[in-house]
Amino acid sequence: MIIVMRKGAINGELDRVVSLIEDLGAEANVDYGVEHTIVGIRSGKHNLRPEQFKFLPGVEDVIRILKPYKLASRTFHPRDTVVQLGMAEFGNGRLEIIAGPCSVENREQIVETAKSVKKSGAGVLRGGAFKPRSSPYSFQGLGKEGLELLAEAREETGLPVVTEVLSIANIELIAEYADMFQIGARNMQNYDLLKEVSGVGKPVFIKRGMAAKIEDLLMSAEYLLDGGCEQVILCERGIRTFEDATRNTLDITAVPVLKKLSHLPVVVDPSHAAGHTDYVKSLALAGIAAGADGLMIEVHPTPESAMSDGQQSLTFDQFENLMKICRSVADAVGKDM
Amino acid sequence: MIIVMRKGAINGELDRVVSLIEDLGAEANVDYGVEHTIVGIRSGKHNLRPEQFKFLPGVEDVIRILKPYKLASRTFHPRDTVVQLGMAEFGNGRLEIIAGPCSVENREQIVETAKSVKKSGAGVLRGGAFKPRSSPYSFQGLGKEGLELLAEAREETGLPVVTEVLSIANIELIAEYADMFQIGARNMQNYDLLKEVSGVGKPVFIKRGMAAKIEDLLMSAEYLLDGGCEQVILCERGIRTFEDATRNTLDITAVPVLKKLSHLPVVVDPSHAAGHTDYVKSLALAGIAAGADGLMIEVHPTPESAMSDGQQSLTFDQFENLMKICRSVADAVGKDM
Amino acid sequence: MIIVMRKGAINGELDRVVSLIEDLGAEANVDYGVEHTIVGIRSGKHNLRPEQFKFLPGVEDVIRILKPYKLASRTFHPRDTVVQLGMAEFGNGRLEIIAGPCSVENREQIVETAKSVKKSGAGVLRGGAFKPRSSPYSFQGLGKEGLELLAEAREETGLPVVTEVLSIANIELIAEYADMFQIGARNMQNYDLLKEVSGVGKPVFIKRGMAAKIEDLLMSAEYLLDGGCEQVILCERGIRTFEDATRNTLDITAVPVLKKLSHLPVVVDPSHAAGHTDYVKSLALAGIAAGADGLMIEVHPTPESAMSDGQQSLTFDQFENLMKICRSVADAVGKDM
Amino acid sequence: MIIVMRKGAINGELDRVVSLIEDLGAEANVDYGVEHTIVGIRSGKHNLRPEQFKFLPGVEDVIRILKPYKLASRTFHPRDTVVQLGMAEFGNGRLEIIAGPCSVENREQIVETAKSVKKSGAGVLRGGAFKPRSSPYSFQGLGKEGLELLAEAREETGLPVVTEVLSIANIELIAEYADMFQIGARNMQNYDLLKEVSGVGKPVFIKRGMAAKIEDLLMSAEYLLDGGCEQVILCERGIRTFEDATRNTLDITAVPVLKKLSHLPVVVDPSHAAGHTDYVKSLALAGIAAGADGLMIEVHPTPESAMSDGQQSLTFDQFENLMKICRSVADAVGKDM
Repeated sequence: MIIVMRKGAINGELDRVVSLIEDLGAEANVDYGVEHTIVGIRSGKHNLRPEQFKFLPGVEDVIRILKPYKLASRTFHPRDTVVQLGMAEFGNGRLEIIAGPCSVENREQIVETAKSVKKSGAGVLRGGAFKPRSSPYSFQGLGKEGLELLAEAREETGLPVVTEVLSIANIELIAEYADMFQIGARNMQNYDLLKEVSGVGKPVFIKRGMAAKIEDLLMSAEYLLDGGCEQVILCERGIRTFEDATRNTLDITAVPVLKKLSHLPVVVDPSHAAGHTDYVKSLALAGIAAGADGLMIEVHPTPESAMSDGQQSLTFDQFENLMKICRSVADAVGKDM
Repeated sequence: MIIVMRKGAINGELDRVVSLIEDLGAEANVDYGVEHTIVGIRSGKHNLRPEQFKFLPGVEDVIRILKPYKLASRTFHPRDTVVQLGMAEFGNGRLEIIAGPCSVENREQIVETAKSVKKSGAGVLRGGAFKPRSSPYSFQGLGKEGLELLAEAREETGLPVVTEVLSIANIELIAEYADMFQIGARNMQNYDLLKEVSGVGKPVFIKRGMAAKIEDLLMSAEYLLDGGCEQVILCERGIRTFEDATRNTLDITAVPVLKKLSHLPVVVDPSHAAGHTDYVKSLALAGIAAGADGLMIEVHPTPESAMSDGQQSLTFDQFENLMKICRSVADAVGKDM
Repeated sequence: MIIVMRKGAINGELDRVVSLIEDLGAEANVDYGVEHTIVGIRSGKHNLRPEQFKFLPGVEDVIRILKPYKLASRTFHPRDTVVQLGMAEFGNGRLEIIAGPCSVENREQIVETAKSVKKSGAGVLRGGAFKPRSSPYSFQGLGKEGLELLAEAREETGLPVVTEVLSIANIELIAEYADMFQIGARNMQNYDLLKEVSGVGKPVFIKRGMAAKIEDLLMSAEYLLDGGCEQVILCERGIRTFEDATRNTLDITAVPVLKKLSHLPVVVDPSHAAGHTDYVKSLALAGIAAGADGLMIEVHPTPESAMSDGQQSLTFDQFENLMKICRSVADAVGKDM
Repeated sequence: MIIVMRKGAINGELDRVVSLIEDLGAEANVDYGVEHTIVGIRSGKHNLRPEQFKFLPGVEDVIRILKPYKLASRTFHPRDTVVQLGMAEFGNGRLEIIAGPCSVENREQIVETAKSVKKSGAGVLRGGAFKPRSSPYSFQGLGKEGLELLAEAREETGLPVVTEVLSIANIELIAEYADMFQIGARNMQNYDLLKEVSGVGKPVFIKRGMAAKIEDLLMSAEYLLDGGCEQVILCERGIRTFEDATRNTLDITAVPVLKKLSHLPVVVDPSHAAGHTDYVKSLALAGIAAGADGLMIEVHPTPESAMSDGQQSLTFDQFENLMKICRSVADAVGKDM
């Protein structure tokens, strides 16, 4: 941490800053500059907080040098983490595909979809049983029945299953059925939920919140890692910006940034980012080209009658065609699929 | 809802749209325009979703006319809702002040603060017992002990108490101690939590999320109202934008917009919006001038040693001075305080 | 400037950084930290650029300590700048009002408006002769004729006149008629225009761009000050965010931030921020309460037939009523009007 | 255009709306809904503005159906526009590469760069002679000398040249040397400049502004097309959002959205979006995969000594390697390069 003193700060003010640093068990390194005096803090511990200094008289700014996350950082964990799920290996130089409907609606829908996406190349099945809907009047998911249907689809196809967990109360139930927990964008900073999920012993797929900086996503991953879950997948699914031509703005640059800052696998969700079938293909291919370890794509037998997110779901045929070109692009950037 | 057909859409496409509308029990009104044919949908029910039409061949756009919220809307509930809490009356033409520390830290801190803010003019005491911290290594609150201390502060001063609830598991516990639940910005779209809290029978203070549109905040209020809680206060506390000179960007316009769209009281939190003591006064006064029914302000006996948010907390003296000028501005805009 | 070396940077990398600093005529202060080695640069000159160091092997980050602007900064110019325009004094502890129509449309409209706003309390007349319209098919302003009409309105009322300049070609012409140049939001970073305008010898009123950070606005002011114009007024008129309930999001916090960082007067434009008459009053009062030195408000004799921005223009009566309450709020915060 | 009347609007209010529509030479189609009465406007002309209706008593909302741009729209011009520049053909199913330094610095730098990028696969040379710098103290470009050097580089390599125009005063001069004008992001809404440039008879490369919606970019293109310039290339180069890990946020979805809405070619600029060499490759490949017709990439012989944007410029070797993988990805999505 570095403290910048105001131009014209008096000696007593500087002394007070230095004293506080030493009281906190750290060492101060004062650099008398031409316009600003700067105090560097040397400390082996992570217990210093900028707030402790920001308000002191004579202090103009406090600058953090260390990243606030550690376990999620590549600095402390240089080697890529690989998350294994059935035959899928996220982070191992491959391109893995998660596909399925937004919501599980009935047995036929989910089983049929599972079979079809597997045939086209998906390695993991997605499907929501508990749905976070912005309107209390919208379909809220089938709940436990949805989980049972997901398990049936897994039996029929062998595909591992990922589904969203909305509250601590359902963790145990979901753990019985799912192979991986999904933390949705709206719950990315629901820290109590993160703490509980991290202790279950299953992989966690965490989506970036609509207003979350890349650093915030890594801090939420830090909660999971700190809680004992080492199998974490990060998902970029679009952020909220002023552009309203699309549902969200896919922050494609987050892919290489996350790969540089962290060792965790990164997946792109083109369906939620685009919000419209017409753009899913472009975003899926862009995600691969940018270096993602996987894609999560919404597929539905009949999108026009889907109970949620139909406008962004692909039909089986559209998905099949997309997988073909995904393979070509993955190949072009040196990834197996 | 209005459906805009693509220029050049063929008759069969239009017919299919009209059929679907009629199948859903509504009435279609076709307007053959010069460039676009437009289909208006007349329906007494709220069961139509734009997604049912967006994907149909020949459809260019689907435009929603009705607001997606109803109970929170002034159209359906023209009279102002008044939330009573001890002597405080939010929404009754008065300016009410909620004050207290970010976190409850110990008995002396919270009781001393409660006495001081009451003397200066606050009508409600705030204090966090469970804290949502972006880092797993930060102070997470005193938990139950914090609640007990809040109750002691209430006994000493008579001030009603508001505190944040982070998870369903703690609702019952918090209900024993608090007079009002606070839903924080990060949980504004934690719908399971909203549903559970709405059934307790206590008022709920809900903060706008950092990426939440005004409409999203009203949708979350709709969950509370639909769940049976009629005593809801809306709080503007800043949104996330590209500007990084301050912690958040206070959307001051949200105050008159919310007052126009909804009957619920609106409170401004200048502390979280500013993120720095220096700007709290300006934002507090702006909130009053813009028409807010109340303010929520962080106050701490010694901000420099606060365990959270010290850089944005006022000292007792600063708060006392702020209340004086708040009274003048409230008076200027015709509000009692 | 401070250079943070990567954890594990080798000695040769550090040496290279130090050499470059010394080659550039500055002094390096190396601080060997526990996790990162940090190099402080001490230099009396402003010729160092972060880019010169960012790409060097072993460098993790380069942190700028000094603000990139100087003439606009309160550090270098602690006393408030006062911009005098007729009887109006921006920055002198008073609240000054600029009012008038978006566009000058005809003689009667502008003269009638000038008389009315003067009577209600405005000290400066605004009116556009050259309009930057997002559509090439919209009314583009009366041009020279508009300037002549503004001059007539000034003769009739004694009010000084501010009008927008869109291109260098019109500077000379506008200078003949206007008392102050306005640089609009879309041209805030049209640096060639800033340079030319700064040399004319008239005050400049510069509006913050929709995507401009506070620092960007101060950098544009720096262009004006550096070009010889000392009479600069800064205007907050709303930024672009994800919220679409209003035309822009008024960044009310920019008012105290600008007053702290700079000595230049700050004016709030509630009309463009709100984009709708209904919200102008709240934003105008919020601006005063937040500490603005003035307001710029759109007024039109018949907003419903205005050739531009009618939806956000006040009628004479609305403006007259607003001025009354503005006086009360200004009084409450200790400002004369 | 569609007008939504307030719930409870009275008959007189509806009558006034209908009268105004008819006075303006259009036809009104009234649809008495259950909760809202809706008035559709049928008009062959584009002269109606929402502002004319928004303020009328009883009106709740005015919804525009037609896009505000026409010449730039695919609806009115279904076939792809191809912009030919030397051997390069933007919009003809090929992937074209524009490359070169941010600023022209000296003869050797620009000629050497031109030769190298041509060899690696670029078809157009870029280089700034007039630079829009946020600081008045930064290098502002070589001006006319820079143009002459660009012309020399063209003679040596045969590559056509694109360079930025900042003000009307320089149009004529630049037209003597450049093959295509570039309108930078900061000038995207400098409409006077657009009008003048559109009349020269050369192609125009226009960059999206940092706060510009996709629709705003198309409106600026409309100015160019309306002014007589049919050879327009649109460029996505990142927008400003809350994410600060990168210089800008590349809106990759803008590529398919622009291709759907407009017939004009679309180019991605990964250098400005990323702001850092490390991310240029990922964004370049994502741009191709998303369907861009071309890329604009900054290349410099020695980025560490560049006078501007060195941190985001590729070396010759990096560019050469990037071109190889670009070819593979272009091939995977069916584009020649």
